Amino acid sequence: MFPTPILTVDTQAIVANWQMLKSRFTGEECAAVVKADAYGLGMEPVAMALERAGCHTFFVATLEEALALRTALPDVRILTFHGVQKGEEFAYAAHRIIPVLNSREQIERWKPVAAEHVHAVSALHIDTAMARMGLQIDEYRQWRQRDAQGLETCRVGLILSHLACAPQPDHPLNAQQLESFHEVCRLSPGIPASLCNSGGIFLGKKFHFNLARPGCSLYGIAPQETAANPMQQVATWHAPILMLRTLERKQTVGYGATQTLPKGSKIATVASGYADGYLRSGSGHALGYVGEHQVPLVGRVTMDMLCFDVSNVPESELHEGAALTLLGDADGIRVDDLAAHAGTIGYEVLTRIGPRVKRAHK
Amino acid sequence: MFPTPILTVDTQAIVANWQMLKSRFTGEECAAVVKADAYGLGMEPVAMALERAGCHTFFVATLEEALALRTALPDVRILTFHGVQKGEEFAYAAHRIIPVLNSREQIERWKPVAAEHVHAVSALHIDTAMARMGLQIDEYRQWRQRDAQGLETCRVGLILSHLACAPQPDHPLNAQQLESFHEVCRLSPGIPASLCNSGGIFLGKKFHFNLARPGCSLYGIAPQETAANPMQQVATWHAPILMLRTLERKQTVGYGATQTLPKGSKIATVASGYADGYLRSGSGHALGYVGEHQVPLVGRVTMDMLCFDVSNVPESELHEGAALTLLGDADGIRVDDLAAHAGTIGYEVLTRIGPRVKRAHK
Repeated sequence: MFPTPILTVDTQAIVANWQMLKSRFTGEECAAVVKADAYGLGMEPVAMALERAGCHTFFVATLEEALALRTALPDVRILTFHGVQKGEEFAYAAHRIIPVLNSREQIERWKPVAAEHVHAVSALHIDTAMARMGLQIDEYRQWRQRDAQGLETCRVGLILSHLACAPQPDHPLNAQQLESFHEVCRLSPGIPASLCNSGGIFLGKKFHFNLARPGCSLYGIAPQETAANPMQQVATWHAPILMLRTLERKQTVGYGATQTLPKGSKIATVASGYADGYLRSGSGHALGYVGEHQVPLVGRVTMDMLCFDVSNVPESELHEGAALTLLGDADGIRVDDLAAHAGTIGYEVLTRIGPRVKRAHK
Repeated sequence: MFPTPILTVDTQAIVANWQMLKSRFTGEECAAVVKADAYGLGMEPVAMALERAGCHTFFVATLEEALALRTALPDVRILTFHGVQKGEEFAYAAHRIIPVLNSREQIERWKPVAAEHVHAVSALHIDTAMARMGLQIDEYRQWRQRDAQGLETCRVGLILSHLACAPQPDHPLNAQQLESFHEVCRLSPGIPASLCNSGGIFLGKKFHFNLARPGCSLYGIAPQETAANPMQQVATWHAPILMLRTLERKQTVGYGATQTLPKGSKIATVASGYADGYLRSGSGHALGYVGEHQVPLVGRVTMDMLCFDVSNVPESELHEGAALTLLGDADGIRVDDLAAHAGTIGYEVLTRIGPRVKRAHK
């Protein structure tokens, strides 16, 4: 293989994270969210590792993702958060994909599918704060009154809602959503319920219900903003050094000439940039490592290249082709750190790492 | 095909942009930069359309990109900005890829390739301000003195440098780089020279030299920060509406409950999010269109979904599956607009649009 940036994904760390979340969860089942290509880390290998560890239920966003996962894992439960869109009905039934029904339109779309296919089951999403997907509570209450057999007709096997502020344990919306979800459950007797994402598991037993569906923390993202991160680091991004220079004179560096470095500064240019998902907003803040040596990013992030000031790195560790760490390597740069440097969240960092960065799973 | 977000790429607009840039350029040849998958728009179809229009020289970042382009276009000149890395020598020669040599290590790596392969030619990059890639001027001068036959030995067919501040015509670095590049040319007699990116073409004839290599403006990005954008709009991103709701009560929306909407507000949730490259930093700023109706983004950008307040859109235009415009449609939302909403540049917006957004070329 030619020299290339590589994202090493530790699937055993993902499994360990899932097992830790499962051990914290007091309900019956711990599922896994593997949408957006398992947050950019490779859906198939990640899901297959989790399945070997005992995970049997997976959530994705779209039907397309579900069909790819079905090919890799013929026997697991697969649910789609986007639910069944017009024209997708047959594929859902044929491949035993479970739509999360989000609207009355989706419910009506599902009824004939459930009537024709004895194995076709669904989940139902009731919104308790996001205003994004799912029936509103009044709407659900009215539907239950009007269509008493609706849950059976749609063969609803899971009721779910989504927490808006789970990483902030003290946010008042958590308690409000919990109260609303209890009402949802009262309206859905005998049907298993799911409220917890990663953060929700850490809000305590009363938030747990029957099924948890962690996503971000499987991949090393902190489940809570207010506590130390208990998750294992999962992803490591190394970029090869394309060239090294020692500045002949004091000069500005990069686009816009935003930074000036003294004569004699050593700069390593590496093969990754914002086209690879290294966010441009990290300019002026981000850092990397060469071995044990922390090195600051200099100049602006460019499309295909990043420059680091490696003046403090011994010559013996600097050569073309050597790996510079952009993310990971034990606790050097956690995904939440890289996100903070770019003013965003770890989720965006992981999901945007592009295809020129080759995935290697271990 | 199932309902999905679609990025429609107008290759004829790209061709028209290339022709306009070519008409402005007073040198001999106008090349095209198609790195990073033609700035996210699809390298093969874009390059093939440009080749049909008469473009014969293409720049990419990496050898991997060059090899993909070579398969699509067997007869064009292909140059790689990253240059030849260790282990890549044979592939460069075998597929007639032209490395931009950036360092003395790359020069020494190329000499035996040029010696063995009579058709193996290279370009040489001299840095005049970026401190990213290329020889420094003193380094180049010394190398020319020490190795008088070096340019011939490496069969250097093009000398290039890169402007750091081209979109800002009044930036003093432009004149400094021009002066430095004249010295570079004096040290490289008889070899064609290239200095202009998109912005450089608009800096006037004295910046032009022999070959221009525009990138961003082919794809609709403004070449100058200080003037109206003369380029044609190229990319249109439509996302299907997953569901619609009318709020039963005044409530907060989205993660973190950052925004409150009044009872009766209509919200459309569409299938695209930051995992698709809709930058999270656009939260609170971005907007979309339903037909002619401008609609503000509400709440935070999430991984797989976006919510828009569509209260001002007539009911007749609102239904599940209808397209909401995130980018494009004539001058509704230009790429530079979407970038400004997210606090970045159009380049990052285009290069980060992810694989769930299907490309359609026309």
